[in-house]
Amino acid sequence: MDRPEFRLIDWIRSRVRDRDPVTVGIGDDAAVLRVASGGELLIATDMLMEGVHFTFPPASPQLAGRKALAVNLSDIAAMGGRATAAFVSVALPVERGFDFARDVHAGLLELADQYDIVVAGGDTNSWRGPLVINVAVVGEPLASSGPILRSGAKPGDWLFVTGALGGSLAGRHLTFEPRLREVSRLCELVEVHAMLDISDGLAADLPHILNQSHVGAILDAERIPISEVARNQATAERSALQRALSDGEDFELLFAVSPDDGRRLESLWSDQTPVTRIGQITTDAGCWLVHPAGQREVLPPLGWTHVI
Amino acid sequence: MDRPEFRLIDWIRSRVRDRDPVTVGIGDDAAVLRVASGGELLIATDMLMEGVHFTFPPASPQLAGRKALAVNLSDIAAMGGRATAAFVSVALPVERGFDFARDVHAGLLELADQYDIVVAGGDTNSWRGPLVINVAVVGEPLASSGPILRSGAKPGDWLFVTGALGGSLAGRHLTFEPRLREVSRLCELVEVHAMLDISDGLAADLPHILNQSHVGAILDAERIPISEVARNQATAERSALQRALSDGEDFELLFAVSPDDGRRLESLWSDQTPVTRIGQITTDAGCWLVHPAGQREVLPPLGWTHVI
Repeated sequence: MDRPEFRLIDWIRSRVRDRDPVTVGIGDDAAVLRVASGGELLIATDMLMEGVHFTFPPASPQLAGRKALAVNLSDIAAMGGRATAAFVSVALPVERGFDFARDVHAGLLELADQYDIVVAGGDTNSWRGPLVINVAVVGEPLASSGPILRSGAKPGDWLFVTGALGGSLAGRHLTFEPRLREVSRLCELVEVHAMLDISDGLAADLPHILNQSHVGAILDAERIPISEVARNQATAERSALQRALSDGEDFELLFAVSPDDGRRLESLWSDQTPVTRIGQITTDAGCWLVHPAGQREVLPPLGWTHVI
Repeated sequence: MDRPEFRLIDWIRSRVRDRDPVTVGIGDDAAVLRVASGGELLIATDMLMEGVHFTFPPASPQLAGRKALAVNLSDIAAMGGRATAAFVSVALPVERGFDFARDVHAGLLELADQYDIVVAGGDTNSWRGPLVINVAVVGEPLASSGPILRSGAKPGDWLFVTGALGGSLAGRHLTFEPRLREVSRLCELVEVHAMLDISDGLAADLPHILNQSHVGAILDAERIPISEVARNQATAERSALQRALSDGEDFELLFAVSPDDGRRLESLWSDQTPVTRIGQITTDAGCWLVHPAGQREVLPPLGWTHVI
C-alpha cells in the first residue's frame, strides 16, 4: 500500500518557508527558534503509535512512555542541546483503564527525572483506539556558538558514531539511553561540525548530513561498531554489518569533526560510551563503503525511512 | 466505562513539580517557560482524534487539520499571547492515501498563514488506525507584564466573554476563529486579571478561574450571550441557556477585569466580535447564577471535562 507520508513530507516542505522566529525548521533533528529577548531555543516532537513503534508485549506501558520521551531527548542531543521541558499528549485506550495510563506516564516521568526535565503540560484523552503518545521537548544549545546542524560537515572531516549499531528492535529501542551526557562531554572537548541521531539506520541517515552539507563520505566497513545483538542475529541473507548499517532505531549519534578534533577525541575521550571513527567526509558527492580487501561499494540507503 | 484521564491528571499533577525554566506548568491554557536570555515563552499542545474530536463527515480533512491548529491558537490567545510557530505530528490512516493527508495539512497551513504562524517541525507517520493530529504551538506574551493566568481574578472584578455561547458542535467547533485579534486589542485597552478559553462549557470552565484565584462569582443569567444555533436547538429538556452554559467547544474567551477597566471596555470596544459582561467576581467561594426574577441557583459544572 502507498505510504502517504513520503510524498507528504515533500509537499509540506514545498509549502512551508522558514522565517522569523524560526531559523532552522523542517529537516533537522529539532527546530531552532530565535527568542525575542536573544538566544535560541530547540524544539523536537515525535509521535509514537501502538502497533507501529511498540507493541504490548514485549513493551510494557512504562517502556512505551519512556521511549516516547527518549526519542525526543535523542533529537535534542543530536542538535548539541540540553533538554529542559517536555509536553506529553496521549490518546489512552479506555478499556485498559487507569493503571495502564499511570504506568505509561510513570515510565516517562522516571526518565524525565533522570535527565532533570520538567513535564510542563500536555493533553490527556481517552478513546477506543490504541495508545498514541506525542511528546514535544524544549531545549537549548549547549555551545554559545549555537546548535549543531546536519549541514555543517566539511570535506576532510572525520565521521564518528557513539555506541554500537544494529539489532535495536530486539529490545534496545525501548531501553536506550539518549546521548545527552555524551553530547555535553563532546561539546566540551571539540567543535562538532554536523550531527544527527541514527533513527532509520546509518546508511539511511548519513545521506541527510551529506545532502545538507553538499559533501560525500567514505566509510570504513571494518570500523563500523556492530552491536553484540546484531552479531548474534547475523544470517547468510543478512550479515551483522548489514544489520549495523540498516536496522534502524539505534538512537546513536553520528557526527563530523575536523581531523585535529578527531585525534583529540581519540586521545581524550573517557566516557563509558565509546565513540568510534568510521570514515571521512569527501568533496565528491556519494557515499562509499570500503571493505578490508580494498573493494568499494556504493552505500545504498537501506534503512527504513518513515519519519521526517 | 471508567475514563482513565480524570484520575490520571490528578496523579500526574501530584507527581510533577514546576521548576526552572517552567514558571507555569500543568493547569493553565498553556505553559510559561522562562528563557535563559530573558523573557517568557508560551507553549500549548492538544491532540485531536478522529471519532472523538471530529468525524468524517461532517468534518472534511481540511477542517480537521484546521481545528487541530485552531484549538492551540485559542490556548495561546487565552494566555494573552501571540502565536509564532507550530509543530504538527500526525498518524495518518494509510488507506486514505496521499490526497487525504495533503488536505489535512492544507487546512492547517491555511490557518497558519492567516495568523502568520510558521510550521517549524513535526512528525509524519501512517498506520492502519484513525487520524490523530497533535499540534504544539509556541507563542509569547503580548504584554510586558507577562502572560494572563487563570489565577489572577480579584473580588469585585467584572466577568466578560467574547462572542456567543452554545451549539458549537453543530459545526462551529470546526470553523471557529481563535480570538488572537481580540486578545491583542484587549491587551491594548485594559489590564486583564484572569482569562481562559471556554472548551468544556462556561459552567465547567469558570470554576478553573475561581478555584485558582480563590474567589467566587455571580453570573447574570439574562446577560449570558446565547448563540443563534443554541437558541434554535432549545428544547423543553435543555433550554438555550443551558446549552450556552454547558455545550462546550465554544473557544470563546472568558476573562476578568477591574470595574474601571470593565466600564472602559464597554465604552471603547469596537471590534466586530462582541464582548459581554456576564457577572462579577466575589470574595465568597462558589458560583451562582442569578435569574431575572431574582432567584439564585448554584451553577453546577455541567460541561464535559475530558481535557486538562
